[in-house]
Amino acid sequence: VVCRRASCCCLPVHLNEDNARFGLLAALILLYLLCGALVFSALERPSELQAHQQWQEQLDNFTQQHRLSLHSLQVLLRQYEEAFVTGIRVDPLRPRWDFSGAFYFVGTVISTIGFGMTTPATVGGKVFLIFYGLIGCAATILFFNLFLERIITMLAYIMRWCHERQLRRAGVGGVEARGEDDSLEGWKPSVYYVMLILGIAALLIACCASALYSTMEEWDYFDALYFCFVAFSTIGFGDLVSSQRESYKAQEAYRVGNCLFILMGVCCIYSLFNVISIIIKQTLNWILGRLDCSRMHHPRQRVQKRNAVHPAPANEAARKQRFTNASVETVCDSETDAGRRLSGEMISVNDFMANKVSLAILQKQLSETAHGNPRQSHIRQNGFSGGVGAFAIMNNRLQETSVDR
Amino acid sequence: VVCRRASCCCLPVHLNEDNARFGLLAALILLYLLCGALVFSALERPSELQAHQQWQEQLDNFTQQHRLSLHSLQVLLRQYEEAFVTGIRVDPLRPRWDFSGAFYFVGTVISTIGFGMTTPATVGGKVFLIFYGLIGCAATILFFNLFLERIITMLAYIMRWCHERQLRRAGVGGVEARGEDDSLEGWKPSVYYVMLILGIAALLIACCASALYSTMEEWDYFDALYFCFVAFSTIGFGDLVSSQRESYKAQEAYRVGNCLFILMGVCCIYSLFNVISIIIKQTLNWILGRLDCSRMHHPRQRVQKRNAVHPAPANEAARKQRFTNASVETVCDSETDAGRRLSGEMISVNDFMANKVSLAILQKQLSETAHGNPRQSHIRQNGFSGGVGAFAIMNNRLQETSVDR
Repeated sequence: VVCRRASCCCLPVHLNEDNARFGLLAALILLYLLCGALVFSALERPSELQAHQQWQEQLDNFTQQHRLSLHSLQVLLRQYEEAFVTGIRVDPLRPRWDFSGAFYFVGTVISTIGFGMTTPATVGGKVFLIFYGLIGCAATILFFNLFLERIITMLAYIMRWCHERQLRRAGVGGVEARGEDDSLEGWKPSVYYVMLILGIAALLIACCASALYSTMEEWDYFDALYFCFVAFSTIGFGDLVSSQRESYKAQEAYRVGNCLFILMGVCCIYSLFNVISIIIKQTLNWILGRLDCSRMHHPRQRVQKRNAVHPAPANEAARKQRFTNASVETVCDSETDAGRRLSGEMISVNDFMANKVSLAILQKQLSETAHGNPRQSHIRQNGFSGGVGAFAIMNNRLQETSVDR
Repeated sequence: VVCRRASCCCLPVHLNEDNARFGLLAALILLYLLCGALVFSALERPSELQAHQQWQEQLDNFTQQHRLSLHSLQVLLRQYEEAFVTGIRVDPLRPRWDFSGAFYFVGTVISTIGFGMTTPATVGGKVFLIFYGLIGCAATILFFNLFLERIITMLAYIMRWCHERQLRRAGVGGVEARGEDDSLEGWKPSVYYVMLILGIAALLIACCASALYSTMEEWDYFDALYFCFVAFSTIGFGDLVSSQRESYKAQEAYRVGNCLFILMGVCCIYSLFNVISIIIKQTLNWILGRLDCSRMHHPRQRVQKRNAVHPAPANEAARKQRFTNASVETVCDSETDAGRRLSGEMISVNDFMANKVSLAILQKQLSETAHGNPRQSHIRQNGFSGGVGAFAIMNNRLQETSVDR
C-alpha cells in the first residue's frame, strides 16, 4: 500500500514491508515463547520439586537400609548415567545397533525427530552422522515438500468433486447458481478446509497409532497420544519411544507398523504445519495492514490507488469488498477472485501457494532492482507478463486485503 | 518431455512425471536408510557390546563389594530411571522448570529440536504442549521460510555486487564483455555458490559456538561440533545439551549466547538444507531424464518439439545448448536464460525457487484440469500470461534440461 502511494521508490518500501513482517513475526514468537515459558513453569514446577524430594527420600532410605555411604552409591549412579546414555536399562531394551535398531536410528536422524534413544558413541559414528545427516535431512525436506504437493493436489481434486456434486444437486433441485462464486468457474478450495481435513487426518492417524501403542507398550492412551504428537511433529523428546523393548508379540509386524505410522504422521503434521503457517502469514499481513491503516487514516484513497493500477477489475473488487464481511477468509476470497480476473485466468488454490510463491516474487523483484529497472518491470508485471503478475497480484492483494480491512 | 510428445493428454502424463519423481525419491531415501543402517551398525555395535559388558562388571563389583542383593539395587535403579527422566542427576543440574529453564524448553519445542532434557510430566503440561506446539511449530516454519527469503535476498545482492565489480575490473582491463551471459543483464547467482556460502556460514557459526561450548561445558571440541550439528539441524538427540549445569561463570551471558548461537545455526542449516534439497531435486530430474532417454532414443526430436511450442527463442536455446558442456549447472544456466527470454523479462534467481514454485505451478495446472480446459490454458500460459508461464517454463526447462543431457 505504501508501495502504491510512493511509486517512485517502490521496491525499497516493499522490502521494508517484508522486513516488517519478519520483525513482527519474530517479536510475536518471542512473546509466544515468554508466555509459554510462564505457563509451563507454573504447570510443571511443583511436579519437579516433588520428584526431587521423592528421589532424595528413596536415596536416603536405600543408603540407611543397606548401610552404604552416599559417596559410593553416587559413583555407581554416575556409572549408570554413562551406561544410560548408551541405552542400558534395568529391564533390557532391544539392541541399539543391530541392523533394525540402526535403521530406526537413521530414520530418526533424517526425519530430524531425533528421539535420542540411540546416539553414536564413537568418533567415527559422530563424524559419519554429520555428513549422513546433511544429505539425509535435505532429501527428507524435499520428500516432505513433494508429499505436500501430492496431498494438496489430491485434496483439491476431492474438494472439487464434492463441490461439483453439490452444484449438480442444487441444479436438480431447480436452484440456479447464485453468482460466479458459486459456480464451478469461480470455485476454489479454501485453505481453512484444507487445514481442517489435514487436522482430522492427523488426528485419525494419531488415534489409530495410539491404540496400537497403548496396547503394545502398555502406555496410557493419552500418553500414547502425547508421544504421537511429539514424534509426528519431529520434536522427538525421547521420554517415550515406541518399539524399544527387547521383544513384543508379533514383533516384526509391530516394527513395520510403527515405522509406517510415524512416516504417515510426520508427513501429515508437516503439511498441517505448512498450511497453518500460511494462515499465520495472512494474519501477520492483516496486523501489518491494521497498523498501517491506523497510521494513515486514508483507506478510501488507497482503494482508488489500486484502481489506478488495475482499472476495471479492481473497481469491481473494491465494490465487492464493501459487501463482504470482515472475516479474513471472505475478504481474501474476494481478493483472490479479483486477482484471478485481473490475470485473466483461473488461479484457484493460490491461498496454499502464497507462502511458497512469495519467495519467488521477492526474488524476481530483487533481480529487477538489481538490474536497476524496477519501474519498467513493474509496468510489465501488470501488462505483458500477467502471469507472474498474477502471483504478484495475489500476494499484493493479500497484503492490501489486510490493509483495507 | 513425454508431455510435449503426447500433447493431447498433457496433464495426466505430467502428473505421472511428478509421481515418478516422488517415487524415485522415496526409493532412494529407503536405499539411503538401509546403507546408513549398515554403516552405523558396523561402527557402533562393538562399542555398544563393550558398554554393556562394562556396566555388568561395575554392577557385579558393586553388589559384591557392598554385599547387596542385585534385586534391591535394581529397585533403586528403576527409581533412578524415573528420576532421570524428570532431570535428576547425581551432579545437580539447573532447575528444569524455573522461568529460564521453561523458556529453553519451549524454544526446543517450537524449533522442533526437542532435546528432551526437559519434558512435561503432568497431564496438564502434556495437553498444553500439544496445542502450544501446533501453533508454535507452524509459526517457526514460517519464520524459517521468511528467514530463507531474507538470506537469499541478501546473498543475491552481495553476489551481484561482486559480479559487477568483477565486470568493471574486466572492463578497465580493456576486455569487452564476452557475450550476454557475461554481462550484468544475463547474470544470475548460481545455486551452488549459495550452497557454498551457506555451508561456510554454518561451519563458521558451528566453529565459534563449539569454541564457546568446549570452554563452558568442558566438552571435547569435536564433541561440541557434533552437538552443534545435532542441535542446528533440529535433530536434537539430547545426549549432549548445552547450558544444563547448575551454574557457570558469566551464566546470564552464556545463556543468551547459547540461545543466539542455536537460533543462528538453526536458521542457517535450515536454509542450507533447502538449497541442498533443490540440488537433489535437479539430480532426480536428471536421473528421470536419463531413464526416459534410454527408453526413447530420440533426443533430437524432442528438441524440435520444444521449438514447436516456443518458436523463436527456444530455437536459440536449442542452438546454445549444443555448445554447453554437460554439467548440470551450465545446462541449467542456458535453459534459465532461454526461459528468461521467453517470458521477456529478468528472472535471475529462479534456481532457488524451482523447489518452492513447482508447487504453485502444479496447483495452477491442477486447477486448470479441474476446470476441464488444460489445452486452452496451456496456450494462454505461453501467451497472455507469460509470467506464470515464465515460472512454468523455468520448471519445464529444468526438467527438459535433465532429459536432453
